[in-house]
Amino acid sequence: MDGEKATPAAAPATPLALHPAVAPLSYLLGTLRGQGEGGYPTINHFSYAEELHFSHSGKKKPVIGYSENMETWLREPMHAESGYWRPKPDGTIEVVIAQSTGLAEVQKGTYNAEEKVIMLKSEIVGNASKVLHYVASQNYLVQ
Amino acid sequence: MDGEKATPAAAPATPLALHPAVAPLSYLLGTLRGQGEGGYPTINHFSYAEELHFSHSGKKKPVIGYSENMETWLREPMHAESGYWRPKPDGTIEVVIAQSTGLAEVQKGTYNAEEKVIMLKSEIVGNASKVLHYVASQNYLVQ
Repeated sequence: MDGEKATPAAAPATPLALHPAVAPLSYLLGTLRGQGEGGYPTINHFSYAEELHFSHSGKKKPVIGYSENMETWLREPMHAESGYWRPKPDGTIEVVIAQSTGLAEVQKGTYNAEEKVIMLKSEIVGNASKVLHYVASQNYLVQ
Repeated sequence: MDGEKATPAAAPATPLALHPAVAPLSYLLGTLRGQGEGGYPTINHFSYAEELHFSHSGKKKPVIGYSENMETWLREPMHAESGYWRPKPDGTIEVVIAQSTGLAEVQKGTYNAEEKVIMLKSEIVGNASKVLHYVASQNYLVQ
């Protein structure tokens, strides 16, 4: 902690400076909305709206806050998840996510800031209901 | 999904109804702020402000959304975490949390709604940096 005087901190008049580790992925920051269609062999086809939110908390934290919410077209909540993306200067990235369904997940991968491509793979998934943990092989591409 | 007409959903005029599984812990819902002092043998003593936020998304989701943010007295961000609390009608509860430091955690325990006591124990902790997972023995009391 700095030794500055105890003046109350005012709301920042300018945008918060980015941590150098977060800067390459600054294009993610903000809110992304979209919609899609889903289907699995065991359930009915469904439509959904999705909102992703990426945030940061200034130059001292090498972390991107993340949340994702899915809704039906009647605005009924579906899946939700939240967590943190931790990009490293060497081009690797770790993602930790808690899911509303009771899963806790660690993903690891790499990013290419120029091409705006992030590759992630589940390394650990913890299931609160089943109390098991396993290394999953699912791959994710964020583009 | 219901077969209702596609009228645009308006913002609810009344508070969202609670899911029955969430109702016993409705006393948690909202924002709690506090401050504290911390210390460990290996680091300097520190003061912090803490904000906890608990939310729900209506009668169809048996889940409480959770976030926690700690700040220094100069409003610099410290630890943050977010996730979901999943109370069950039988008095047990699961908590899944992602932490800004790169940990993914599953906690399990029990709650007593009348006495407003929740006991939690870490069952799984995944560390994104070390790629290990272990069963921790730490106990938490939320009162």
